[in-house]
Amino acid sequence: MPTISIRGNEMPESPIRKLAPLAEAAKGRGVHVYHLNIGQPDLPTPRAALEAIRHIDRTVLEYSPSQGYRSYREKLVGYYEKYDIHLNADDIIITTGGSEAVLFAFMSCLNPGDEIIVPEPAYANYMAFAISAGAIIRTVTTTIDEGFSLPKVEKFEELINERTKGILICNPNNPTGYLYTRREMNQIRDLVKKYDLFLFSDEVYREFIYTGSPYISACHLQGIEQNVVLIDSVSKRYSECGIRIGALITKNPEVRKAVMKFCQARLSPPLIGQIAAEASLDEPEEYSRETYDEYVERRKCLIDGLNRIPGVYSPIPMGAFYTVA
Amino acid sequence: MPTISIRGNEMPESPIRKLAPLAEAAKGRGVHVYHLNIGQPDLPTPRAALEAIRHIDRTVLEYSPSQGYRSYREKLVGYYEKYDIHLNADDIIITTGGSEAVLFAFMSCLNPGDEIIVPEPAYANYMAFAISAGAIIRTVTTTIDEGFSLPKVEKFEELINERTKGILICNPNNPTGYLYTRREMNQIRDLVKKYDLFLFSDEVYREFIYTGSPYISACHLQGIEQNVVLIDSVSKRYSECGIRIGALITKNPEVRKAVMKFCQARLSPPLIGQIAAEASLDEPEEYSRETYDEYVERRKCLIDGLNRIPGVYSPIPMGAFYTVA
Repeated sequence: MPTISIRGNEMPESPIRKLAPLAEAAKGRGVHVYHLNIGQPDLPTPRAALEAIRHIDRTVLEYSPSQGYRSYREKLVGYYEKYDIHLNADDIIITTGGSEAVLFAFMSCLNPGDEIIVPEPAYANYMAFAISAGAIIRTVTTTIDEGFSLPKVEKFEELINERTKGILICNPNNPTGYLYTRREMNQIRDLVKKYDLFLFSDEVYREFIYTGSPYISACHLQGIEQNVVLIDSVSKRYSECGIRIGALITKNPEVRKAVMKFCQARLSPPLIGQIAAEASLDEPEEYSRETYDEYVERRKCLIDGLNRIPGVYSPIPMGAFYTVA
Repeated sequence: MPTISIRGNEMPESPIRKLAPLAEAAKGRGVHVYHLNIGQPDLPTPRAALEAIRHIDRTVLEYSPSQGYRSYREKLVGYYEKYDIHLNADDIIITTGGSEAVLFAFMSCLNPGDEIIVPEPAYANYMAFAISAGAIIRTVTTTIDEGFSLPKVEKFEELINERTKGILICNPNNPTGYLYTRREMNQIRDLVKKYDLFLFSDEVYREFIYTGSPYISACHLQGIEQNVVLIDSVSKRYSECGIRIGALITKNPEVRKAVMKFCQARLSPPLIGQIAAEASLDEPEEYSRETYDEYVERRKCLIDGLNRIPGVYSPIPMGAFYTVA
């Protein structure tokens, strides 16, 4: 029997999935289980998205363009404008979830053996995509004592060598809920510029910032426009995890050209997902406000509750819908 | 500015996309263009699928399980039974199109530098997925003079070395329309057994076999059950290219375990696509018959027409909906 690949062995099993059998067993004993283990919002998907799906008037569910429908990409330009991110439709490539955006970013930018630096704790699947691309993740540790703020620049520089090709951040952060400050983002910009690195920035939680602090996107940083690869997804924003629609955004034409070749190989992102995601942009503002208010309530309930348990401490997350206790 | 990866450079641009600007230019000159360039059926998607989408009664479009919905996988067991392929639901992993099934098969089974042998002409994107996995495709040539039949066993054996890890076939074949005979499939089985190789078998065109010849699936071959990785997709079968639903099927638990780790990293296949694909299995037989009859008509029209052009010759394709002239 032929053996599987080294990569297949090295790939991490989902750490979250290990909890599932324990939860099932507890349920079997009659325990009520609250599933806080995965980023699966239970809030409703925008009505506009569901209506668009229900009113599909096609007779053939055909391939869409490999980079996604132009109409959707053009509408996204307006969405990003609201966050002071100035794009044109060609800067945006629609992917099968944010997951594919990370994979294609790594595949296009990193050679086997290349290293990227990631503040940890970090989203577990970055590691899986790095292994898929043969790349190596080096980590700088953020700590609960420092509220998960950006480690000192020296900590990054200690790790930088000739194989270092990029930095990856998640902002607001999954799983810490931390939001990088303007000062921290400028530090990252300076590092990226000094060592000529890629900056992969996963900003799928930008809707969920609970403090008055400004959202500083990697796309706001001046002088590194050609270094930035933005990772995005509608999964959390609109409770649309199942439609598998994300985006890879970059001003770098070489990166876009490489990413497009991976996109062409897999033919197209999901058709119906794009229809839903495009329609979601028409949902009244009220939707975002209600979703936001609900998360604010829940954050308060959870964090207050946690911190009332003797011996437990959780900082107040500034964004996203996670915390570390 | 950091440079893109070697892999990103090596990835092939879609050869088909090179034709698109020429077609556009011709249209600009007022020429009517028939698009024969991509495998995008214009026949209708099953009504059952469209109805299922229109009647979605969910309020949250949530993640589905990484291996796909159990209900869909159980129903697929019955579908394969009709082709004398005996599976249980756990042998079936739902993927984001057949494309992802090929990618995950390569990622899970092949190390960088490993070789697989593929009869050519072949589907162009196999090369792209091999490059993604760092694997190398070696080709054995099939010719129009021999009707694209399987090359002699010796041709395969000439290429086999210590890096050879598998054989990939597409049956019925894209782009030649050839259908491997029982004798040829047995030759492949013997090779796979003798050299302990994986057999990746892309059988997405099994519905479209136009001769009385039997369909011999890789899953029918005895004694190599642990070596076979079947690639499937609903794209062509149901005119559902846009929903991005495929499957990777294997009796090999080690391969399944590795593939599942790649599946968990990308979280889930498209939710609405699975709903459509599952509903398609309920479409009356009439749908398949009408689709089949239409392709038979078109095949006759195209092949007769081609062969009437002086200097042009096309063999009569036995399956799929392609030909080489």
